[in-house]
Amino acid sequence: MTDQTQILIFDTTLRDGEQSPGCSMNIEEKLQVAAQLEAMGVDIIEAGFAIASQGDFDATSAVAKHCTRAIVASLARAGAKDIERAWDAVRHAKRPRIHTFIATSPLHMRVKLNKSSDEVLEAVERSVRLARKLCDDVEWSAEDATRSEPDFLARCIETAIREGATTINLPDTVGYATPETYGAMFRDMIARVPNADRAIFSTHCHNDLGLGVANTLAAVAAGARQVESTINGIGERAGNAAIEEIAMAMKVRADVLPFRTGIVATEITRASRLVSGITGFQVQPNKAIVGANAFAHESGIHQDGMIKDASTYEIMTPESVGLTHSNLVMGKHSGRAAFRQKLEEMGYELGDNAFQDAFDRFKALADAKKSVFDEDILALVDDEVLRGHDGIQVREVEIHCGTGPARAILTLLVDGVEHTAATRGNGPVDALFNAVRALVPHAGAVLERYEVHAVTGGTDAQAEVSVLLSEDGRTTRGRGAHHDTLVASARAYANALNKLIVKRGRAPVDAVAAG
Amino acid sequence: MTDQTQILIFDTTLRDGEQSPGCSMNIEEKLQVAAQLEAMGVDIIEAGFAIASQGDFDATSAVAKHCTRAIVASLARAGAKDIERAWDAVRHAKRPRIHTFIATSPLHMRVKLNKSSDEVLEAVERSVRLARKLCDDVEWSAEDATRSEPDFLARCIETAIREGATTINLPDTVGYATPETYGAMFRDMIARVPNADRAIFSTHCHNDLGLGVANTLAAVAAGARQVESTINGIGERAGNAAIEEIAMAMKVRADVLPFRTGIVATEITRASRLVSGITGFQVQPNKAIVGANAFAHESGIHQDGMIKDASTYEIMTPESVGLTHSNLVMGKHSGRAAFRQKLEEMGYELGDNAFQDAFDRFKALADAKKSVFDEDILALVDDEVLRGHDGIQVREVEIHCGTGPARAILTLLVDGVEHTAATRGNGPVDALFNAVRALVPHAGAVLERYEVHAVTGGTDAQAEVSVLLSEDGRTTRGRGAHHDTLVASARAYANALNKLIVKRGRAPVDAVAAG
Repeated sequence: MTDQTQILIFDTTLRDGEQSPGCSMNIEEKLQVAAQLEAMGVDIIEAGFAIASQGDFDATSAVAKHCTRAIVASLARAGAKDIERAWDAVRHAKRPRIHTFIATSPLHMRVKLNKSSDEVLEAVERSVRLARKLCDDVEWSAEDATRSEPDFLARCIETAIREGATTINLPDTVGYATPETYGAMFRDMIARVPNADRAIFSTHCHNDLGLGVANTLAAVAAGARQVESTINGIGERAGNAAIEEIAMAMKVRADVLPFRTGIVATEITRASRLVSGITGFQVQPNKAIVGANAFAHESGIHQDGMIKDASTYEIMTPESVGLTHSNLVMGKHSGRAAFRQKLEEMGYELGDNAFQDAFDRFKALADAKKSVFDEDILALVDDEVLRGHDGIQVREVEIHCGTGPARAILTLLVDGVEHTAATRGNGPVDALFNAVRALVPHAGAVLERYEVHAVTGGTDAQAEVSVLLSEDGRTTRGRGAHHDTLVASARAYANALNKLIVKRGRAPVDAVAAG
Repeated sequence: MTDQTQILIFDTTLRDGEQSPGCSMNIEEKLQVAAQLEAMGVDIIEAGFAIASQGDFDATSAVAKHCTRAIVASLARAGAKDIERAWDAVRHAKRPRIHTFIATSPLHMRVKLNKSSDEVLEAVERSVRLARKLCDDVEWSAEDATRSEPDFLARCIETAIREGATTINLPDTVGYATPETYGAMFRDMIARVPNADRAIFSTHCHNDLGLGVANTLAAVAAGARQVESTINGIGERAGNAAIEEIAMAMKVRADVLPFRTGIVATEITRASRLVSGITGFQVQPNKAIVGANAFAHESGIHQDGMIKDASTYEIMTPESVGLTHSNLVMGKHSGRAAFRQKLEEMGYELGDNAFQDAFDRFKALADAKKSVFDEDILALVDDEVLRGHDGIQVREVEIHCGTGPARAILTLLVDGVEHTAATRGNGPVDALFNAVRALVPHAGAVLERYEVHAVTGGTDAQAEVSVLLSEDGRTTRGRGAHHDTLVASARAYANALNKLIVKRGRAPVDAVAAG
């Protein structure tokens, strides 16, 4: 890199983000997100943790093959099997990277690894050397760097660079740093590690104290030139630093933060919505940049200033992050060509069968609903994509409920065979889910969360339902969309069950990943 | 204040928080929040903007009378009428404060105020002098301080202190600052204003770039000794700096942030849930400190470290912020005494009629639902409190829906008279809301958002529905809870309509408030 103000954006939505409890993405979803990340100008995409399961391997490998511009990385612990598996997953990428890590803090070395610091140092040497034999682009991370002993951390970094790591990541794994301490660590390491100039230093911040973005910017000011972050700030616990906040802070305050990223800001809103739609993690209204209220003003209080000059209360425009008012785009008279063109504008390319299904559902929706907005189409297509591979599908739903008792009659297609059950329950959702349970026994799975959102305004909006199931500590989130909330609920529940069945096959690995 | 490490916490959930689009609280709700803020150890409560409407005045006045320990402030612009109205609202508080403000940035002075800087300086002098004649405790704020010209800002501050302001607030009204620039402003002003030692300097940060908490901490390091913030970080646009993040950062990183607050950290979770319940602003799962995932780990990945030693991945315990696992507390055999004791533990003291109503609903719930959790009781009591004063009440709901057409039969009590309508719609919610519209015509109101959350886990959980209505730019949010999501929906819609009717009486004021 010759431009010293250019900051590389390393997205880990598909790896650290996907590690959020209740968040899991299938291959199709990861490919959709990866395509949007490339469109948004992300430099490096961490696609997964290849050794975690066959599903993770397949998804990482699929993203590696599909990306045309971004570097694609897989995470790997320090062992040879991890690193080889990571390489197998990314080797077909245009620009592959192996990202290997080991913990360097006294607490993690003792409690988690049960290794002496000499043993850890040796593991750094061995792991980076192996990774570099397989791949030219190797990133090494010091897990829990912010609680590591500086002298030891410096020796590890020097070793990793000597063995060929070209990126050195110093994560604040537990979200413990402040801007001062995090910036100081980078300044210190870059100054004292003799071969520091041969690597790019990278930040990876968690938001446990609400300081993820500020810590990232402090490290950049101290010399870091790669930042690891996620869309909407999703990730373990309180999440990671949010890409959109980092990118817009550098853009809006270029006067005091003289750094540039390759982020195409106008793609931010689309990326945010795609990720919240797929993961079911709703963005709170007061989330910076991408929250529903980020650019909203309570107009009950007359905003004289806003009307005269938006810059009175706005430091950036909604348009600058790709937020435009939902346009009434399609109606019941829209034809196939118009619908296909609309889908293409929205970034979808569906195969013929999937297109026909989506079009049929669009026509049904346009018949039932006065106005069809972009968001409605998004929900419809997402629902289509999701339902494609499911063993359990919802055929018919009939509900009677209200202040009296609730009853449900449900017909499911299970592995190609129709089954019907009639059940009662404490409310329509309970009645309906009792019917699902009668048809697909799954005693171990517990419903952790149930949420309904209207996709657009208006009482005739499509409802998007998300359902969080857990079983033996594994959690999956299902989604369903329909203009009837209860049909959407049945679909969401079925979707979560389908995902749970897939997830049952995922073998546990013995540590959380770097950062 | 003699202890130079003590930081005063100024809560503006009830003022800046309530200014969030879609957020409005009635008097009972404001009193509940204020009581919890006192229990949490907040030093100053900004209860409202007295001149904004009669409702704002009444709520501010009620909070002033009820608080026993905290200072209670009302906001006021620089005009005499504003200041007198603020004083009338808080004069009966044990410890009243008038908080007056005017914009000091060139942009705001020109565009919003249409005043020269000399005129603004004169207004500072006049407004603080008047406020101080009425009240010993006067805070003055320089709206848009971070975009103000430093020499002029210093003159304004000096004038405000000379006229008797004891707190000087320098808000980052548009969320434009970085930790470096915000800290530097405080260092500069405290150094150059000759009488700076006679006032406490205060921060007020917005989160538009995700830097609200970091900016607050930077200002404290630079000498600020009051911080203005909100529960869950609610507030205009991307919200304000979150109290819980500021307080826990100072607690967890006392080594590098050697400051103390009076916040009782174990009350944080309760405060967060109360505010999100009342405002309907759900906290996103990855929100720091109070998000559902803040202390959750994806256990599908075996967390060897977590099991051996929680500090491997946790820098604070869930218990330290008052998060305990929901206990099964009550069942169908629990009696009146046990229920009353439970309510008292949860901070509710209901009058006899309200108690009887709540108890009846608790028994009905306990009959219908296997396990009754704290959260269920909270939803039930909140719903009770909400329904108390409503002109429109839901009597009976009957719904037929599913993959076929949806029909609703609804009976409402409108100003004491029962009315019934039978309607069809695009899904059960649409059918139901069409029935509401048939019974209570309100052509101007538009449904902006519709959300359903399960109060606890389990398919038989109570549903909490929130509905966002807008009319002529005014927005109101209604809530309803019931084990039947559609009954809860009807209640939420009725609640939003009731609030809208109240809000129609609120006169617009010609500017958003300081910060």
